[in-house]
Amino acid sequence: MHYFSDNATPVCPPVMAAIAAADHADHGYDGDQWSARVDGAFSDLFDTPVSAIWVASGTAANSIALACLCPPYGGILCHEEAHIVVDECGAPGFFTHGASLMPLPGEGAKLSPDVVAQRLAAIRPDVHQVPARAISITQASEYGRVYTSDEVAALGNMARAHGLGLHMDGARFANAVAHLGCAPADVTWRAGVDALSFGCVKNGGMIGEALLFFGPDRQARAAEAARWRKRSGHLFSKGRYLAAQILAMIEGDLWLNNARAANDAAQALAQAVPDRLLHPVEANELFVRLSAVDAATLRAQGFDFYDWGEGAARIVTNWSQDGASVAPFAAALRALDHE
Amino acid sequence: MHYFSDNATPVCPPVMAAIAAADHADHGYDGDQWSARVDGAFSDLFDTPVSAIWVASGTAANSIALACLCPPYGGILCHEEAHIVVDECGAPGFFTHGASLMPLPGEGAKLSPDVVAQRLAAIRPDVHQVPARAISITQASEYGRVYTSDEVAALGNMARAHGLGLHMDGARFANAVAHLGCAPADVTWRAGVDALSFGCVKNGGMIGEALLFFGPDRQARAAEAARWRKRSGHLFSKGRYLAAQILAMIEGDLWLNNARAANDAAQALAQAVPDRLLHPVEANELFVRLSAVDAATLRAQGFDFYDWGEGAARIVTNWSQDGASVAPFAAALRALDHE
Amino acid sequence: MHYFSDNATPVCPPVMAAIAAADHADHGYDGDQWSARVDGAFSDLFDTPVSAIWVASGTAANSIALACLCPPYGGILCHEEAHIVVDECGAPGFFTHGASLMPLPGEGAKLSPDVVAQRLAAIRPDVHQVPARAISITQASEYGRVYTSDEVAALGNMARAHGLGLHMDGARFANAVAHLGCAPADVTWRAGVDALSFGCVKNGGMIGEALLFFGPDRQARAAEAARWRKRSGHLFSKGRYLAAQILAMIEGDLWLNNARAANDAAQALAQAVPDRLLHPVEANELFVRLSAVDAATLRAQGFDFYDWGEGAARIVTNWSQDGASVAPFAAALRALDHE
Amino acid sequence: MHYFSDNATPVCPPVMAAIAAADHADHGYDGDQWSARVDGAFSDLFDTPVSAIWVASGTAANSIALACLCPPYGGILCHEEAHIVVDECGAPGFFTHGASLMPLPGEGAKLSPDVVAQRLAAIRPDVHQVPARAISITQASEYGRVYTSDEVAALGNMARAHGLGLHMDGARFANAVAHLGCAPADVTWRAGVDALSFGCVKNGGMIGEALLFFGPDRQARAAEAARWRKRSGHLFSKGRYLAAQILAMIEGDLWLNNARAANDAAQALAQAVPDRLLHPVEANELFVRLSAVDAATLRAQGFDFYDWGEGAARIVTNWSQDGASVAPFAAALRALDHE
Repeated sequence: MHYFSDNATPVCPPVMAAIAAADHADHGYDGDQWSARVDGAFSDLFDTPVSAIWVASGTAANSIALACLCPPYGGILCHEEAHIVVDECGAPGFFTHGASLMPLPGEGAKLSPDVVAQRLAAIRPDVHQVPARAISITQASEYGRVYTSDEVAALGNMARAHGLGLHMDGARFANAVAHLGCAPADVTWRAGVDALSFGCVKNGGMIGEALLFFGPDRQARAAEAARWRKRSGHLFSKGRYLAAQILAMIEGDLWLNNARAANDAAQALAQAVPDRLLHPVEANELFVRLSAVDAATLRAQGFDFYDWGEGAARIVTNWSQDGASVAPFAAALRALDHE
Repeated sequence: MHYFSDNATPVCPPVMAAIAAADHADHGYDGDQWSARVDGAFSDLFDTPVSAIWVASGTAANSIALACLCPPYGGILCHEEAHIVVDECGAPGFFTHGASLMPLPGEGAKLSPDVVAQRLAAIRPDVHQVPARAISITQASEYGRVYTSDEVAALGNMARAHGLGLHMDGARFANAVAHLGCAPADVTWRAGVDALSFGCVKNGGMIGEALLFFGPDRQARAAEAARWRKRSGHLFSKGRYLAAQILAMIEGDLWLNNARAANDAAQALAQAVPDRLLHPVEANELFVRLSAVDAATLRAQGFDFYDWGEGAARIVTNWSQDGASVAPFAAALRALDHE
Repeated sequence: MHYFSDNATPVCPPVMAAIAAADHADHGYDGDQWSARVDGAFSDLFDTPVSAIWVASGTAANSIALACLCPPYGGILCHEEAHIVVDECGAPGFFTHGASLMPLPGEGAKLSPDVVAQRLAAIRPDVHQVPARAISITQASEYGRVYTSDEVAALGNMARAHGLGLHMDGARFANAVAHLGCAPADVTWRAGVDALSFGCVKNGGMIGEALLFFGPDRQARAAEAARWRKRSGHLFSKGRYLAAQILAMIEGDLWLNNARAANDAAQALAQAVPDRLLHPVEANELFVRLSAVDAATLRAQGFDFYDWGEGAARIVTNWSQDGASVAPFAAALRALDHE
Repeated sequence: MHYFSDNATPVCPPVMAAIAAADHADHGYDGDQWSARVDGAFSDLFDTPVSAIWVASGTAANSIALACLCPPYGGILCHEEAHIVVDECGAPGFFTHGASLMPLPGEGAKLSPDVVAQRLAAIRPDVHQVPARAISITQASEYGRVYTSDEVAALGNMARAHGLGLHMDGARFANAVAHLGCAPADVTWRAGVDALSFGCVKNGGMIGEALLFFGPDRQARAAEAARWRKRSGHLFSKGRYLAAQILAMIEGDLWLNNARAANDAAQALAQAVPDRLLHPVEANELFVRLSAVDAATLRAQGFDFYDWGEGAARIVTNWSQDGASVAPFAAALRALDHE
């Protein structure tokens, strides 16, 4: 059983069924009946008017969001280990036409208002320095840590006060909401988020991530985002096959149920090795201390995962698992400490 | 029955089956078993080593090809009605960082060597003018016209003589090859094509277009293209679902059979209205003179299509049709002239 | 005596004197006393509040103006022989991050409202096509033709009606105003011009062209332009030496007097060869029919100029000449037809 | 007497004289007699063939160099306090089309091979991470520190070993060479430098910084740089006025003599306050501990400079000074500690 990544997992059956159900002739691009329903479905889910587009990847969703929030001469405050900094081959620089990422430290790959405030204060308000124009945070973070509503709101208030846009990379947004047990609105627009990359693929989808805009500027931003989408080759000629997946994911709470299953699996594993955890487990990722010998022992039993530097491993659970199904791995992990 | 666009058509069953067959856990991005086979399958098809990537759309395939062939300060010779000029919201300008499209006239949306030569001769070789660095042609063209091997080779020779890269937008490449009855190699690398956007979606796929590089520089260009792919958000986290579609399309000649069916359907319609054709029908598109009254008559019978300016219509056939299945529409078209 | 280009001419003495007068210690960039006066001087000249920046070249002024008026996914309507199209190595594509130039025909390298209207009407208002967002005209045009106030206003009205910005490339703006005898305001902001590249170098300056913004958005646009200026390396560390030149040029009407001298010289030459003129002479450029033999004859007498294709020549007069000083060349030209 | 910046200083008389001497008609852009001599003059100075361009600012020189050494998807290793990081409003991102600056720590704003090696080792060689493609160092550094030949060569060797280009921002290159007493070649191409921004303006010039390319690729890179120069608006229409300045600066060792004078002045000041120095003084900048009261005391005597955060000041000497002329300021500084 693999614990490499939620990307390595198959598509969940309801999404496959939705694809099959959309397999009819309809208008191209986003002129079809499924595409027409996406804004409404997200508006219901978030309890506020939402304008959405959908694209091939989280990288594209993040980058288009940032291009809408930050001019080429602006800067984007973000964590130094954020996906946009370390795992997108400079995509934000491409989409924003050279805006500057401003990487900041922070525990658990989370940004704190203090660190943000300190960085903002260090920028001279002259034409020689890059002015900050946006903040980007990841929910759940690259270390599986979750921002509470209050934590997001603190950053949201700071963004407002300084005229910055606030973007949330929600590749694992579902896992964060499942952990918090809050309304999706509470950790997004109610807390000041302007744009959300709403992840689907890691959570059971096949292809297609959504980018949502909230608030009074949402339509203008989405209209601009639609230009970036076309211009970057992310307007699919058979867009209905993506829209159908997204609808399947959010209608009927599949997104939340899938995330809960993955989170439960992660908790089951976490409880097996509480002393090995490098970060508290709040979503579906575990970072554990693991010697080369221990790793080999686990792999010999058919459990696989990625090494995380030396002496550690990253273990990712997914929608197809749950607390019960990962019991064998939990046992194998537990056994490491009792040999 | 719709004749809007080949985009409006469902996915063909073998492609759907291939997606289902790929629905297993495997490594993310292009680290899976399906992705590993794509280069080999295209190399077999084209009878030469091929390096390929795949992306969300033809727009992305075209633009990444051009970014690999033309520097930001260069120019791309192309037809003034080419898709890259009129239907991609400036995507080539985005991916190439501002390279200049150099639109040229030409019958049937095809470029001729004479027109290209004349344009090249008009460029002063100084630093003030944009130097041409690439030629892009569309096979089949935006008017459903097909370049013969000799016609491509004439442009290929000119490209070589002037140090230009040659790109072929093959959104309907299958239809062109089906029309010519030649080997795919004959109208591509043997004729001097460096990069081919190999269309799948219009021809029965769901999502995913391939970009192929030929010749001695193919690996370096594909490596660079892989950077653009990631950087533009076109590296899919579950790339196996795209690779599987592409393999299904090219293994077993599905691509060619689908195109033949669409071409046959187009011929059946063309024969119904030979005097109304605005362009010879060589692929799966017909451009026909059609009054508003005639258009209304057809639509009243359930046949739909796009108007093409005033007094004309564009009719597109697709893989799900063939000469027989379009007989009712052919009859309806024929009836227009006999009322 | 050379008639190559107004670029080939020395700096006029008052500008040299202004440079010498600015040769004192002062703050860097544009924090000095000369820079502080530029906005005011232009506001006086144009009889309206003006926000200005200055840069190294007309290419930079034009491109920064267009970057402020047109988003990357937009299009710029312009004449197909405009400097921005044929002589700037794609600079507008660089500064605008890939916006599309939309070249149009027009007599004398001038745009007419009809041609603009026709092009605008041909753009589908969907996400696939590049939307026009700006018009750029050249005053005087690349063929030395001048737009009247009414002609500019007709384009300005069209720009307003379609939500387009209007840019004027005024590399030879002084020559146009000298020809028209109007107030500078009449052919600019009163006629709907949003941004003007105000040329100095061809008119007697050494280094430094101004970019002016008019109207209610002028300050926001100039603030953005100041970012582009810094970001493109056009904020000079000793900017006072440029500001002093520009002030010398506009304070005391040097700009207009210089242009009048050049225009008078052009008229004197035009009257010598009325039947050879390819375009009416309205500014300081003549395009004349000239056989290779005739050209050689003139060059043998020490008069030089650029060939303009075959059988024609471009003759440019400049601030250091006037009607009297070009009499020998006029005589030599006249003599060609009387041999 | 001001110690704000070397930018605030007038132009040195030989440069003014050279400008006056170039004030004749000649061909535009870089087609004149002065421009023709620049490559040769630099080749003599550096004892190797050099290909040069010249531009309006150090920002442009640096950015064009980086655009020639690093693709858009690449990264540039540099010090976190480098001018390209903190004082150019993101210009490198603009010219490189979004390449990533990779800021590193280091004493005295200098990069060490260890820090570079560590950063390189942390980059995964996959398509998700930005690959380093260039190193940029500043000579003298932002804190007035100078790299020895051996220090540059250690970075040069590392650059070669990893296939990286090596750029040197030499805004104060003259001051560094004056300090080292070495041949210019020793700290540049002999130590592995591919591209050098050779500063003139801070050292007595008016307008114009040179960008030099060394080594076997120099011509290809300079040809590409010439495209960027035109495309970014840095090809001056009266380029001879810049070329003449640069020639005046390097012919006859004016550059070195000016730098020596500034360095001597800095040493005279440094010796006055050895215990207040925050960094060793090796070029023409001093960073000194200075209370608000002390600063006020100095300013009351007519000496001015910039505050450097709280409790410190930056003092910059320039070509117009020397050890003797700054004696009053040295005395005033010395007096602070003896009151």
